[in-house]
Order: sequence, then C-alpha cells, then structure tokens
Amino acid sequence: MKVAVIGCGYWGKHLLRNFYTSDKWELACACDSNAGQLEAPEKSYPGVRCTTNAADIFADPSVDAVAIATPVDSHFDLAKAAIEAGKHTWVEKPLTSSSAQANELLALAKKHNVLLHVDHTYIYTPAVRKIKQIIEAGELGDILYFDSVRVNLGLFQHDVNVIWDLAPHDISILEYCTGKKPVSVNATGSSIVKYSDRNLENIAYMTVNFEDNSIGHFHVNWLSPVKIRRIIIGGSRKMLVFNDMEPMEKIKIYDSGVSINSREDVYETLVRYRTGDMFSPAIDNKEALAEECNHFFDSIAVNKPTITSGQSGLYVVKILEAAGKSLKNNGVPVTIDN
Amino acid sequence: MKVAVIGCGYWGKHLLRNFYTSDKWELACACDSNAGQLEAPEKSYPGVRCTTNAADIFADPSVDAVAIATPVDSHFDLAKAAIEAGKHTWVEKPLTSSSAQANELLALAKKHNVLLHVDHTYIYTPAVRKIKQIIEAGELGDILYFDSVRVNLGLFQHDVNVIWDLAPHDISILEYCTGKKPVSVNATGSSIVKYSDRNLENIAYMTVNFEDNSIGHFHVNWLSPVKIRRIIIGGSRKMLVFNDMEPMEKIKIYDSGVSINSREDVYETLVRYRTGDMFSPAIDNKEALAEECNHFFDSIAVNKPTITSGQSGLYVVKILEAAGKSLKNNGVPVTIDN
Amino acid sequence: MKVAVIGCGYWGKHLLRNFYTSDKWELACACDSNAGQLEAPEKSYPGVRCTTNAADIFADPSVDAVAIATPVDSHFDLAKAAIEAGKHTWVEKPLTSSSAQANELLALAKKHNVLLHVDHTYIYTPAVRKIKQIIEAGELGDILYFDSVRVNLGLFQHDVNVIWDLAPHDISILEYCTGKKPVSVNATGSSIVKYSDRNLENIAYMTVNFEDNSIGHFHVNWLSPVKIRRIIIGGSRKMLVFNDMEPMEKIKIYDSGVSINSREDVYETLVRYRTGDMFSPAIDNKEALAEECNHFFDSIAVNKPTITSGQSGLYVVKILEAAGKSLKNNGVPVTIDN
Amino acid sequence: MKVAVIGCGYWGKHLLRNFYTSDKWELACACDSNAGQLEAPEKSYPGVRCTTNAADIFADPSVDAVAIATPVDSHFDLAKAAIEAGKHTWVEKPLTSSSAQANELLALAKKHNVLLHVDHTYIYTPAVRKIKQIIEAGELGDILYFDSVRVNLGLFQHDVNVIWDLAPHDISILEYCTGKKPVSVNATGSSIVKYSDRNLENIAYMTVNFEDNSIGHFHVNWLSPVKIRRIIIGGSRKMLVFNDMEPMEKIKIYDSGVSINSREDVYETLVRYRTGDMFSPAIDNKEALAEECNHFFDSIAVNKPTITSGQSGLYVVKILEAAGKSLKNNGVPVTIDN
Repeated sequence: MKVAVIGCGYWGKHLLRNFYTSDKWELACACDSNAGQLEAPEKSYPGVRCTTNAADIFADPSVDAVAIATPVDSHFDLAKAAIEAGKHTWVEKPLTSSSAQANELLALAKKHNVLLHVDHTYIYTPAVRKIKQIIEAGELGDILYFDSVRVNLGLFQHDVNVIWDLAPHDISILEYCTGKKPVSVNATGSSIVKYSDRNLENIAYMTVNFEDNSIGHFHVNWLSPVKIRRIIIGGSRKMLVFNDMEPMEKIKIYDSGVSINSREDVYETLVRYRTGDMFSPAIDNKEALAEECNHFFDSIAVNKPTITSGQSGLYVVKILEAAGKSLKNNGVPVTIDN
Repeated sequence: MKVAVIGCGYWGKHLLRNFYTSDKWELACACDSNAGQLEAPEKSYPGVRCTTNAADIFADPSVDAVAIATPVDSHFDLAKAAIEAGKHTWVEKPLTSSSAQANELLALAKKHNVLLHVDHTYIYTPAVRKIKQIIEAGELGDILYFDSVRVNLGLFQHDVNVIWDLAPHDISILEYCTGKKPVSVNATGSSIVKYSDRNLENIAYMTVNFEDNSIGHFHVNWLSPVKIRRIIIGGSRKMLVFNDMEPMEKIKIYDSGVSINSREDVYETLVRYRTGDMFSPAIDNKEALAEECNHFFDSIAVNKPTITSGQSGLYVVKILEAAGKSLKNNGVPVTIDN
Repeated sequence: MKVAVIGCGYWGKHLLRNFYTSDKWELACACDSNAGQLEAPEKSYPGVRCTTNAADIFADPSVDAVAIATPVDSHFDLAKAAIEAGKHTWVEKPLTSSSAQANELLALAKKHNVLLHVDHTYIYTPAVRKIKQIIEAGELGDILYFDSVRVNLGLFQHDVNVIWDLAPHDISILEYCTGKKPVSVNATGSSIVKYSDRNLENIAYMTVNFEDNSIGHFHVNWLSPVKIRRIIIGGSRKMLVFNDMEPMEKIKIYDSGVSINSREDVYETLVRYRTGDMFSPAIDNKEALAEECNHFFDSIAVNKPTITSGQSGLYVVKILEAAGKSLKNNGVPVTIDN
Repeated sequence: MKVAVIGCGYWGKHLLRNFYTSDKWELACACDSNAGQLEAPEKSYPGVRCTTNAADIFADPSVDAVAIATPVDSHFDLAKAAIEAGKHTWVEKPLTSSSAQANELLALAKKHNVLLHVDHTYIYTPAVRKIKQIIEAGELGDILYFDSVRVNLGLFQHDVNVIWDLAPHDISILEYCTGKKPVSVNATGSSIVKYSDRNLENIAYMTVNFEDNSIGHFHVNWLSPVKIRRIIIGGSRKMLVFNDMEPMEKIKIYDSGVSINSREDVYETLVRYRTGDMFSPAIDNKEALAEECNHFFDSIAVNKPTITSGQSGLYVVKILEAAGKSLKNNGVPVTIDN
C-alpha cells in the first residue's frame, strides 16, 4: 500500500523516515505548503514525489493512505478532504480543534468506509503496552486515581496552550490503559509568560472526574527547570509508577496500599497500611512509531479500527475542549457529554 | 520563663523534649486529658508537673507560656482560655478550624497583650530559611509560580481531610518565602478510600490564584506508593527546586528560564530558552523545633511577633477554608477575603 | 542475665541504650577509663553501676556478659581478661589487631566455655539477612564476584587506617552471605592526607581472591565528596545490588546476565546477553543492634555460637592483616592461611 | 583535504558519518577487508570510493589523511603503512598492542612529518573539556586521587580483555585532565565467565601510582547488572564527580574536603571537615566526534600535534601494558618506564 505524508516539519520527518524504512508501506508522496520543508525529503528519499499541493495527493488514486502532521487548526479540513477522497487517514494528535469536528470526521470515515487513525504515539511504546497488560490482568485491582506530571523547560507553542500541547499524551494513556468514562473536568492555569496576543496558558492543572468516583489529574508546564514525566496509577490492590525519564526501570509496581477494617467500633484501627515488594518488569526497546506504522497497515488489511482510532481521538478532544471552557471560567467544573 | 505543654501525643512528645532540653525555657507542666499519655513524660522528665486538667495550667500564675498540641477541633477553646489567662500561646498547625476563630484569637491576643504563635515548623528548617534568603536577595526575580507535591502512603487522619493535614506545611512555606496575596482558591479531590462517615478526602489538588496573576498549586495525597516532597518555584530570572527527600542536595537553583524577544514581527523567535548552571547551597543541620523554641522565647522577651505569628496562622486557615468550600462545590473558585 | 559495657564512647552509647531497653538483658555496669564518659550513662540509666576500672567488672560474679567497645588495640587484653573471668564476651569489630590474638581468644573462649561474639552489626540488619536468604535459596546461582564501595567524607581515625575502619563491615557481609574461602589478598592505597606520624592510609582498594576463582573487591575512602555504600553481587543466574543509601529500595535483584553458547564455530554468538525483570523485596525496619542483643542472649541461653562468633571475627582479621602486609609491599599478593 | 576511513564496523560507521557531514573534510574512500561492510556506505555516501584493499588508499596521492578503525591487532601495520605513505594518521584507541609499537609509530610519524592522532573521543566531549578547564583554573587544588568506575552488562570482546576495552577511556581522561606521571601499576581481575581459549578477564581493577604520591584507580567490568560511568576526582581544595549517566548534571563540584590543623598537641582536632556548596556547570550538547574531526583538520593545517596525539596514545598503552603484566603476576606492581 502507498502512503503520503502531509506536513514535513518536526513530527512529519519522523513519519517520513518510518514509512520509508517500513517493510509494509511504500512512501509515495511528501507534501508541505512550505517548499523549503521539502528539500530534505527530496534529498533523502529518492523516488518519493514531493508537492506543495495537498490536492495532488487526494486526486491520486494510487495513494491508499494519508498521514497528516500539520498544525492542529488545519487537521479538520485536510482530514475531511482525505476521507472524502477515500483515503485511510492518519491524523496527528490532537485529532481536531473541537469535538464537533471530531464527530464529523468519525461519521465521514464510517460513510466512506475508511480507517480514521489518530497518532497517539505513546500507546505504541513498549512501556504503555506493558502497563495496559498489567491493568488488564487485574494486578492493580480497581483503579482509584491517575496522576500525571509532564513538565519541562519546553517549546512554547504559538497555536495552542500547554494543555492542548502536552496533555493529549497522558489522556490517551489514561483512555487506553483504564477506559474510564469522564463526567466532568476542572482546569486552572495561567499565562504567566506573555508571549502572544492569544494569552495562551504556559502552566496548567486539570482534574478529570470519572463515573466511578475515581479521579485523574494532569499537570502540564512549559516553564519547569526540571524535566518530569511521571504517571502514578493508584489501584486497590497495587500501585504503579511510570517514570519515562528513567532509562531502565520505567515501570515500578508497588505491592503497597491500605486496607479498611470493618470493625467500626475500633476507630483507630480502621485503616491499615501495607508496604511490600516492588517489581519492575523488563521492557522492549522497539521504536513506537515503527510499531504504529505496522499496526495501521495491518488494521487496514483486515478492515478493523486501530487501537487509537477516531474514537480515542474524540475522547481526548472532548476532555481538552472541556478543559478549555473550565480554564476560561476560572476552574468551574465542565460536564462532558458522553 | 516557664512553659506548659497541653497534648502529649505524637507531636506533643517532640515539644516536651525540646522545651525540656532548651537552655532558655523551663518545662513546668505537661497536660493531657488522657492520663495514659502522661506516663512517659512523668518518667522521662522528673520535676515536671503532670495533669489531666488544662484549667490547672491556666490558673497557675507561674506559667508564662502554653503550647497546645491537641486535635484541631480543640485549638480554639484551649487557645482562647490560655490567652485570657494571660499566657503567651503556641498553637499547633493549623491554628483553628475556621478563619472566624482565627480572627477572634488574633483580636484576643492583642487585647491581652500576649504573643500568639503558630507552630509552622517547616519555617524553622535551615532549608526554608535559605530559600527565603535566596528569594529576598532577588536571585529568582519575580516569582511566577509555586508548585508543591506532598504525597506518601500516609496516616489517614480521622478528624481532617488530606488538605487540612498536609497542605499547611506548604502554604506556610509559600507565605513565608513569597508573601503573595491569594485572591481565590480552587480545590478538587476525592474520598477514594471510604473510611469514615465524614467522607474525608484522601487525595486532593488545590490551585491558589494570586493578585499578581501568578499561581500556586498543591498536590496532597495519602495514597501514593512513593514519597514525594518537592516544591518548584519558578522565577523570572532563575528557578528553584526544593526536594525534601534528598539527604544532601535539598535545594537546587537553576539558571534556566525563558526570555521574550520584543520583535513581534519575527513570530518564531519570540521565546528564547536558557539552560545554565545549577547551584546547590550547603544547608545546616539544626533541628527546626529547637530553633523555634528559642525564637518563641526571644520574641516574648522583646515583645515582638514571631515569624509565624497568628497572622500566618490566619493566612493558612483562610486558604484551607476556601479550599474546603471549593471541594464541596466541585472545584468552583472561592474568593478569599483579605 | 546481667551485662556490663566497657567503653562508653560513640559506639558504646548505642550498646548501653540497647542493653538498657532490652527485655532480656539487665544492664548492670558501665565502664570507661575516662570518667567524663560516664556522666551521661550515670544520668540516663539510674541504677547502673559506673566505674573507671574494668577489673571491677571482671571481679563481679553477678555479671554474666561483657561487651567491649574500646579502641582496637585494647580489645585483646580486655577480652582475654573477660573470658578468663568466665564472662561471655562481646567484642567490637574488628575483633583484634592480629590473627594470632584472634586465634588465642578463640582457644581461650573454648577452654572457659564462654561465647565469644563479634559485633558485626550489619549482619543483623534486615537487608543483609534478606540477601543471605536470597543467596541460600539459589536465586543468584553461583556467586561470581562481590564488589563493595564504602566511601564518604568520613571521620579520620587515629589508631587504624581506612581498611581497618571501614572494610570489616563489607568483609563480614561477604563471609555471612557467601561463605567464600579467601586464598590471597592484594591491597593498594595511599596516605594522601598526612595527619599522623603513623602514615595511615585514607583511601584504599583491596582485592580478595577465592578458592573457586571468583573475586571480591573493596573500595574504602575517607575523602569522597559523596557518600556511597553499595555492594554488587554477580551471580551466574541473577545479580544483586545492595544500595544502603536508598531509603526504600535497598536491594534490587536483576534477572540479567550472560550465557555462553557452546557452538564454538559461530564465534560471534558465543556470549548472549539477558536483561530481564528487576525485583526489590520489602525489608523490615528493625534496629540491627536490638536484634543482635537478643541473639547474643538467646545463643548464651542454648550455649551455641552466635552467627557472628569469634570465627567470623577471625575471618575478617585474617583478611585485614593480609591487606596490611600487601599495602606495605606495594600490592603484592599475600596468601591467607586457612 | 581528503580523508579515507579503514574499517567500517561499529565505530567506523560513526567516523564515516562525521567525516561525510563535516564542512572541512571531504570523505574520499571507505575501506573494509569484508566487502559486506561496504554495502551501507556505498548506499548512504554516493561519490565515496569503496575498496576492500587498504593498499589502494595508501597508493592514492590525493588522500591526505587516513582514519583506522579496525581491531587493535591490526593498528600497527596499517598505521605504519599509512605514515610511510605520507598520510596524516588517525588511529582508533588503543593506539597499538604494545608500547614498543607505539614508540615506533611516533618515531615514524616524526620522520615522515605527518600527524599521528589517537581517537580518544572522550577528550572531545564538552564535559571532559569543562573538567580540564576547572582543574587548570586551580579550582580543585592539588589532585589527590582519581577514581573511575566503568561497568555495564557489556559486549564481551573476543580480541582484548576488559581493561584494554574500557580503561582507555578513563586513562585518556586522566592524562588529559591531570597530566600525572605514572610510576607503577597494579592490576587484579578474573576471567569469571570463560568464553574463549585466551581466558580474557571480564572484570578487573587497576591501581596507578603517580610520582607525587597520589593514586588512580579504575574498575572495569562487563558483567555488572547496572551501568555506572563515574569518575571522582579528589582535590585538596574541592572535589569533582563526573557522572556520565546523568542526562543533565554530569559534573558536580563539591566545596568539601578536610583541613589539617597543625596544633599537634590537640590530637583530636587535627582533621577538620568541610561540607559546603555544590555547583554543577552547564555543558554544551556538541557531538564529540564532530569536534574531533574539526580539530584533526585544524591541527594538520597548522602542523601542530592534536591534543590526543601519539604521545597520549603511548601514555595509555604503557599503562595497559603494565596492567597486563601485573594481571598475569597476581597483582604485583609493575614499573612504568618514562
């Protein structure tokens, strides 16, 4: 099958390389509205057609699939055109700028019988795959809370705030690993460093409340002197810490927790603590994006949705959208319509 | 001067030991309504009068000062009686259960011309003293944000939720080091583990918004498999990380940050990054509580408020109170009246 | 049973406290040739007889056991007198200044039918007990090497060099956990900082060669800016790291290693690597010295040697003695006579 | 200037890439006796001549310089031929298999007036450059000791033991940063895992004694479950730790040490401790090998030796050679002839 990549910037370069070296895919075209961005692929990938006009790609019947890695604002129009041209469509995260757009893309993809895939790359890392297995095997018990910190002295984005930039990673991990249903979102933050007219937040905190009374929290920050990428998942049986900055022991599972004693008359002894062994499973070294390219191919071949289909894209966008409303209203809870 | 300690439980024991070994104070009495709690002080501190009746202490004209280390609910009545008996009064954190009570104690202390001191012990640690010096010297520039995490597999309290239990430490550090004026508070959280009728939260997140558009955030959690006690203070010049779990390098100052270029026409170059040297100052090994006992004595001697006087107690209680209201109302912002 | 402590300095204070608070022992006497050292025990332990004359203790028939915590040079004479007076004898590490002395004490203890116990405290820590269990259960397979680092900006001793000061800890752990038979020792080092006429080494490295071709290495240093206390035990099946500076995960067991492929024709594939899971067992929080006091008591009660009897004291002294000879001869191998 | 690379294996690939992308060099030829190794460069570097015959390169008058990245055993013959052909010669570390060979190459290079450069890549890392600056500025005072650990679950080499494989890195850092003159070497180790007839050591320890009574120590190990790359440099004023596994704070300078009090009558106070601030300088992110390629070019242009010339290659080989003799003789000291 032939694939075309639209958008050859920072992330697009990774897509080009992975599709080019893939055993399954044939990289047919590279497209960027900025001709300068096409110089590198022209040199490195002889035989790949380069164009500044996306319409060329949509019009080309030999192209089976399109991968879109452009700024968020342009996702909807490009994806819509691709789907309507009958292409299987891969869209960079976040899927769209609004849940209405996401819903429309989902409906269109269904109508045109093509796959809509969202590039939640983290889901294809060996570490996140392992976390999913651990949770599905019941090792952690019920998931009580999900706490994520993703902070860094990071690149200020000019089109989206820090939540739209960084939180999709962690929300997609939450969705993939726990499948929890969000009911409302609170978000607070500040545009501490003023750098654009749009007053985009550089630091933000978001709470997601779930149907089952459990809670998720996301701290995202472009202004931290230290780089932290850590998720704590508290379970009723065990607890897991995913520290993505650790080179070796990324996942640690703690046989720790509390147990509640039902003898309510003995007030002080109600809550018991348990600190037990820790276990850190070995994790493969595979490149996530290569896995994802293969999975996209295989899913198309059997006509089944990918594990990060339009549905998970919609899940993420709904939460981001609600967070945006909450941020504008000083942190009031914003209900998510399921 | 003679001091009496009321409440000989976990923290009271530390007060007894420090007042007993102090060169300045004479520990005169130990009081606990539970006679069993008096056995240990009776044995260890010969010559110290032990009583189950706090009224004995208030009635004793030879007692100059009283230190109260009882459950929060009892602080107000005991402190009021102590002040009205003309005793300088030291109260465990948090000062009271409400800001109304705190205000009343402040007024009473003024009327009776006694010191009202709140035991915000962290303020007397060499690390926090050093942070204050660094900020006052202007090393960090303007303080842009204050981010605190204090989580652990910790003792569930039966009288207060996790915010009232843990956040006073960090709020008092915020107040002492930055003096920022809070304008509103958002808090979210959950009583994930049900262990009492009062449905007290075991995990919570709190955002404090300040007059100057800067932001504070506090993550407190009794259910974390790992112990984290870390404060990040983002400044316009440098940034500071206080990691209280590090045995040696508790404070790190990063010469890192962003600078905004005013040439607004060159859109992409507006924000510049700077990653520079890191410096970790040496810190003394003094016991905070011993320092605090001395400071309380010296402040009484010159009739000046301590650095953690009733005012800082009130500051902390106002934020806790607002957080409580926000928590009950799903995270809506609650204004703080200054 | 009644016990007397001789030597009330830094370590003696810990012995006094543990014997005093023991449920099994009665602390009868404290002895120090320096009367000033007796002021603290006189105040803290009412009813305990204090004396500057060790002979008083040996002459007292009511004393069952003696614990000696004096400088190394005096161990032999004091222990000899204690044994000859029929006392069960506990000696601070290292047991004596020479293996000849150690052998003589062992023979004497046998003759007088008393226990000779060496205070290798580390053996009574929950971590070292756990390591022993792990090795005995065969989890690590054959022990291929033992590598220890114990460095710090540490107290310069005036009577012994850094090997005699620090290495006994690690040698005793080696002996207890592996039981390996040493055949020779090489030691190198330097008296980098000159601080006494005796030119004692402040930094040293020691290799111990075992009967089975495996190897032990010990790095001890009083001049390190960072504190490292780490032992790596390489096994043919798994490998273990004991990091005593970690507050929580002191022991980590790695399912890592190499396997040798017998197909010698395929040159490159002879050695295969295996990097697997890591497991960190939970460890109790018991105080080692309290455990050791109990174990000393129980061993006397049933008349069986302690797990750190004179034999392990002799094991350690033999290696230290050989290391001393090697150091004086620029690192030549010195045979250990078994 | 034109350069040819001989040996296109693991390290040769890095040389090819860096010479190819260099602004200064023109990569003219790639050579490997194994034709299979030439497929990759043929594809990636169009226009570069590929040959299996090194003699072609030596015979080509247009080639100015040759870089040799073959197994150690072949270094001498290839480098000799290159020098005699009048080429500036870059040799992979270690320079040769013996100091006699190294001396011969030095003499030949002098005679033929070409540069002999040894690829001690670490010297071109920003971290090691910074360490050199710090020491030269006198910040550490006199260098008292140099302690290096380089251990890993590492690739077993089939032609050299672990000292010849790993220690050249650290010895070259020692030489570059301190310039100390070695007088003798002790080495111990073991071929714990038997994997070849040559019985090559997999774990080894080496002490280097210097003229000024200071000491160096090197721990190298292919069988460690954890990866450690750490050098401690103890100075009379300050101490430095270089932890190459740290992503950010690779160098830490501790204002710590001891001072000796001359009042010899006050025995106990002779040695005083000082624990002060820690400072971690920012370090550039430049690729060492790119810097080294430029430096090689510039040195040829001005006809001056590189900072890792044949002399430093000889320094390293002399120590390796002495270590080999000591290892064979159970750790006896082996004198280094200067």
